Amino acid sequence: MRSARRLLRRKEREAAGEFLAEGRQAVAGALAQPGTVIDLLVGADVVERHQDLLHVAVRADVRVGSVPPAQLATLADTVTPQGVLAVCRTVDVSLDEALAGEPRLVVLCDQVRDPGNLGTVVRCADAFGADAVLVSRGSVDLYNAKTVRASTGSLFHLPVVVDVDLAEAVSRARTAGLQVFGADGGGHGTVDDAIASGELARPVLWVLGNEAWGLPSEHVALVDRLVALPMYGRAESLNLSTAAAVFLYATATAQRAPS
Amino acid sequence: MRSARRLLRRKEREAAGEFLAEGRQAVAGALAQPGTVIDLLVGADVVERHQDLLHVAVRADVRVGSVPPAQLATLADTVTPQGVLAVCRTVDVSLDEALAGEPRLVVLCDQVRDPGNLGTVVRCADAFGADAVLVSRGSVDLYNAKTVRASTGSLFHLPVVVDVDLAEAVSRARTAGLQVFGADGGGHGTVDDAIASGELARPVLWVLGNEAWGLPSEHVALVDRLVALPMYGRAESLNLSTAAAVFLYATATAQRAPS
Repeated sequence: MRSARRLLRRKEREAAGEFLAEGRQAVAGALAQPGTVIDLLVGADVVERHQDLLHVAVRADVRVGSVPPAQLATLADTVTPQGVLAVCRTVDVSLDEALAGEPRLVVLCDQVRDPGNLGTVVRCADAFGADAVLVSRGSVDLYNAKTVRASTGSLFHLPVVVDVDLAEAVSRARTAGLQVFGADGGGHGTVDDAIASGELARPVLWVLGNEAWGLPSEHVALVDRLVALPMYGRAESLNLSTAAAVFLYATATAQRAPS
Repeated sequence: MRSARRLLRRKEREAAGEFLAEGRQAVAGALAQPGTVIDLLVGADVVERHQDLLHVAVRADVRVGSVPPAQLATLADTVTPQGVLAVCRTVDVSLDEALAGEPRLVVLCDQVRDPGNLGTVVRCADAFGADAVLVSRGSVDLYNAKTVRASTGSLFHLPVVVDVDLAEAVSRARTAGLQVFGADGGGHGTVDDAIASGELARPVLWVLGNEAWGLPSEHVALVDRLVALPMYGRAESLNLSTAAAVFLYATATAQRAPS
């Protein structure tokens, strides 16, 4: 418990290479990745409810313990925790590993600051079959409790790279055969134009900018070009995670369409 | 100030037919709708920064006042408010008004509970040119500070109906010529199937369920059928606002495609 509590701080998570995954969805996702869960902690009052997870953990030789609900609550980020929490080994991989094989759809978050947004982008990337998520230097911690929760287990489903240098990632992505598009309302063409031209059917790295200021000009200079979403009403833009969802959906669909 | 402060409570907002819009984006959106803003309050320390909004307000015969920053902060929902806030008349319209004309794309939130989600759906609906947003009974308040902020002014851009009865809305929507699709992971077909069949090019009301439990079976019975998003990875679903974004984008695109 004591060693788990230190993982509430980013610095300690980085030093230990461990983090906390909270709630049934995240814990189930972690348990599905052999070697990820170190300890499974269940509230003493809800052991029955989480029996399925306990069985999986025991079969996988994961240490299991029940703890007083009040004690578990000190580790939980949510107001109404579900009474189940896993101490996990970090799961991020290297850029080389993430771009191995023949990636067709990769998303890079450039200085994203909101943990919920990052987690939601990871979830969307998983949903639409992306090959990897890259998280730039200066972004929120992938292992923040809110990020882990918003990813609803997707964090464990696809390769994620952290602490990425944008210039290096773009260069490696090009070597791996990916086009590099900046997702930006200031784009000259829209995602629909990129579908019509056939570009979106080819492999793409999408670079998403910060929630408030988007992509700074020195980062715009690194991408092939900016691509916007069509805006048919009076809103000027979407927020980061909804925009990511649409870019990813549109690309996944274009890449699967019969040519 | 005193009368503005009471608007922090839903009951008082409903009694007065007034609410607070906070921040430059929301205030600018409200000012663009004649007759909406009653009072414009600016922090005494940031009057210079918001001069453009003050000018618009004065020209529109809106009462304008500067208030001590500490006093303004008691009205603001955000930790770092921008020092500008408008007391607005509520802007929701009747179901008849919202469905007048020949609506082609309408979205209904059925018992949505998170204010950020509702505001984000309104923003997405605006972005993709929807004709109206309907909010069911039992949903979070449209005029909650978090909803207003997440809508980033879109609340003022398209007709929104509150306190909607689902059965009545579905019936009126059908009369208005709309198909009624429930957005649901349990759908037999996906949105891509509905594009391929040509259905999505025709007018649609999308019914979105609650964040946690989706659409209850008695509400599923009211829609024509359920439609899912394609899921290519291991995630089981998207969250409410990202799913809404994709359904709305896909429909807006299908309805504008040359047939």
